[in-house]
Amino acid sequence: MVTKTSLRAMILAGGSGRRFWPLSRELNPKQLLSMFGTESLIAAAVHRILPFVEDGSSVAIATNERLFDELRGHLIAQPDPALHALRYIQEPLPRNTAPAIALAAAIFAAENPDAIMVVLPSDHLLEDGEVWADCINAAIATAADGYLVTIGITPTLARAETGYGYILVGEPLPQFEVGSVTPHLATEFIEKPGAQLAEELVASGEYLWNAGIFVMKASRVLEELDAAGGAVAHIADIVRQIAACPEGLRCGDEARERFATIEPISIDNAVMERCERVAVIPAPLIWSDVGSLLALAEVAEPDIHGVVRSGRGVDIDSRDSIVYSTDRLVATLGVRDLIVVDTSDATFVLPKDRAQDVRRVVDALGLLGASEVSQSRASLRPWGSWTTLLKSPGFQIKLLEIKPGAKPSLQRHRHRSEHWVVVAGTAFVTCEGDSIEVHVNESAYIPIGAVHRIENRGDSSLQVIEVQLGEYLGEDDIERLEDDWSRCCE
Amino acid sequence: MVTKTSLRAMILAGGSGRRFWPLSRELNPKQLLSMFGTESLIAAAVHRILPFVEDGSSVAIATNERLFDELRGHLIAQPDPALHALRYIQEPLPRNTAPAIALAAAIFAAENPDAIMVVLPSDHLLEDGEVWADCINAAIATAADGYLVTIGITPTLARAETGYGYILVGEPLPQFEVGSVTPHLATEFIEKPGAQLAEELVASGEYLWNAGIFVMKASRVLEELDAAGGAVAHIADIVRQIAACPEGLRCGDEARERFATIEPISIDNAVMERCERVAVIPAPLIWSDVGSLLALAEVAEPDIHGVVRSGRGVDIDSRDSIVYSTDRLVATLGVRDLIVVDTSDATFVLPKDRAQDVRRVVDALGLLGASEVSQSRASLRPWGSWTTLLKSPGFQIKLLEIKPGAKPSLQRHRHRSEHWVVVAGTAFVTCEGDSIEVHVNESAYIPIGAVHRIENRGDSSLQVIEVQLGEYLGEDDIERLEDDWSRCCE
Repeated sequence: MVTKTSLRAMILAGGSGRRFWPLSRELNPKQLLSMFGTESLIAAAVHRILPFVEDGSSVAIATNERLFDELRGHLIAQPDPALHALRYIQEPLPRNTAPAIALAAAIFAAENPDAIMVVLPSDHLLEDGEVWADCINAAIATAADGYLVTIGITPTLARAETGYGYILVGEPLPQFEVGSVTPHLATEFIEKPGAQLAEELVASGEYLWNAGIFVMKASRVLEELDAAGGAVAHIADIVRQIAACPEGLRCGDEARERFATIEPISIDNAVMERCERVAVIPAPLIWSDVGSLLALAEVAEPDIHGVVRSGRGVDIDSRDSIVYSTDRLVATLGVRDLIVVDTSDATFVLPKDRAQDVRRVVDALGLLGASEVSQSRASLRPWGSWTTLLKSPGFQIKLLEIKPGAKPSLQRHRHRSEHWVVVAGTAFVTCEGDSIEVHVNESAYIPIGAVHRIENRGDSSLQVIEVQLGEYLGEDDIERLEDDWSRCCE
Repeated sequence: MVTKTSLRAMILAGGSGRRFWPLSRELNPKQLLSMFGTESLIAAAVHRILPFVEDGSSVAIATNERLFDELRGHLIAQPDPALHALRYIQEPLPRNTAPAIALAAAIFAAENPDAIMVVLPSDHLLEDGEVWADCINAAIATAADGYLVTIGITPTLARAETGYGYILVGEPLPQFEVGSVTPHLATEFIEKPGAQLAEELVASGEYLWNAGIFVMKASRVLEELDAAGGAVAHIADIVRQIAACPEGLRCGDEARERFATIEPISIDNAVMERCERVAVIPAPLIWSDVGSLLALAEVAEPDIHGVVRSGRGVDIDSRDSIVYSTDRLVATLGVRDLIVVDTSDATFVLPKDRAQDVRRVVDALGLLGASEVSQSRASLRPWGSWTTLLKSPGFQIKLLEIKPGAKPSLQRHRHRSEHWVVVAGTAFVTCEGDSIEVHVNESAYIPIGAVHRIENRGDSSLQVIEVQLGEYLGEDDIERLEDDWSRCCE
């Protein structure tokens, strides 16, 4: 029997989700989007595994330096306090999934030699519930016996997906059965087959989709890497060295240098496809990798003409299209098989059958230096959120929303002054040591260089219009002196 | 010889331009748009006729109560002072072109019994230059002899337009020749023929397009209406009564009641098609009625794939499309024969061959109560412009731009207070009798009910972020006490 205390989870959250532009951005990747439910994909991923572990600190968000602030800000902004206790593992450099998973395995194994780890993607859709629980429990039981376990989704669509990995189901392992779920040996992995092969695989009824969910003893991952020898064994050496460092140094320059000596490789190639004791859990769950904008067809029921719409507007004589708008009005007339995605700062129009090629647009916009590739107009912070209303040379306007009881860091800016007008709630403002209450319809001024802080001591949301003036208005002009979320340099 | 002093012009500017949504709005109709050149269509229309009249006050903008403020604000905001001296004739009620033209004719004839009037649309594109001057001068000479004269555009496109009116060219009138331009009798009018007939008309080489430009003695217009008898003669009676009123009463309740007794009818039907002495000036000019969003194809050169683009973004693998964006980023991928129009608050996507059906979308949005049908986010004012950045229950943010030397009215609001943060230039602010200079990076506060004014005494543009707070934030909550453009109630 596996106890909760030995269970760990890691959520792979380093992806940039470029295929979901303009909804996703480099600094607002797909895992942070919440169009498919009441919470973001990453929050849903955490909630999917939380019931099986001891507490939030057993779940590690695997990310990179670039995304760390956004991810943590986003997760701390969630109402569930369990999501505030998550831990973070920063990949020193991107090297595909095997090194990232190995690093987590090394950290988990150092904490508990019997640790069993569940690896989950942060940006997929997956049906929750009893069957899912049975799958995970069966996977844990199987992994406890030394198997490397993967979850295999029963293909339910009447089409053969060429973008997925396929797993051949072998002999059953009835000793690990939980409820209606029986683990099996996994005897073959086929990555992204051609269209014809994919059809054959689905038709055979013997293959499952690889959902990128793995359950395995942390120590077994490292053993298998060691056993592979060569470049793959080198991964295990490096991650053991990095895991032995104090946490703060795990993504320092030295860690980066060592990580740089690793060849990028996926966990499938490095481990799953070459080991003997690999099992698969056949899971009859609704699942999507949200791999392209076509997934937006799931956000609403189509109308009688096959148009899926989210957001204000009308579709006249349009057919079989997806119209998704975050906040603006969008109208279509007589379009066919089209995707229209509209955000506060960018619009994208493409035929459905080109959804796989979004990357080309993002690349072209990147070459133009378009900031819409990397940044969104709004960002969730631990204390609430900000939204940019206007960016202009010399000034910038933001709407700040600060949650009841929250306060952004005590900070100062080198290059900008700020005017705050309170439009809802009451602000408790500290500036150069003096504190005042600023009520709705009142304003405060923060000069360049002044140490300041804003705080919502009320029990309703505080909304502030911030007018920034200065020659440089970048997000990085912020020196944090105190912060409730330890976002200052030690 | 006709002297300039007897020449008048009227610009028909009452149209709502719904076919140009979302660029045009009910309160920002097509004639105010400036995508086709350095100035708006209406400013271009005024400049087209100004060289032939004595001064700006000889040109009347014919409009309605709803549009009057927007049109006048727009024209006073133009740099050319001649456009600040224009006069305005408000149609008491919309009754098609004949009653509007008749009203102007009655006013002009009362001022000068020999008045010759030029009637021009406010929202067309027309080639300017020497040939145009010859056309107008020939038309004036012909009209002085008592003819009702229309300008007929030589069909230049290799296609038969079904949306235009066609004029059959009769015998020449060489006595009125100017330069290369020879007036002819007009012997037949055909309105919007079917596709086959249109082709025959163009192929015959004997028909011209009716450009909606008329030149005629004001007194002759009234005579011809009188001569027609019945409902048409009634038009002349009513407009004579209204023209005899003092200017301020011309669109009062009584004028409206009388105007309501008129049957709507076009000038073509009421006069041109039934009179004997009608002439046409064959004009080999480039002309467009800017009748649909397809006209946007004129704003830029197409790329090698036939894509006409205006605004930031990229088009990857797209063909034969029009992508027009006023300020946001728009990307297309693999689209064909599409029109994408993007404004700060609304996006519209349609195939090119549906451009005639925009009205259906506007109607549907109107039923939803979408404010984007009637209002735009920005508006030109006599003193500069404002742009709405955010509208939210309880507050609203605007960017105000005030021209050097200009000042909006001395005013007060019943339902809102205002915070002003100066982000460029220096404001001279008066509030309840006290005046202060507010420099860049400084702010001022205007309480509810306070009599206030902002003024730009500097020689560069003044930019102010205005945060409005209040339960009601409509544009009409403004009581003007003094105004440089007489926008207060007498």
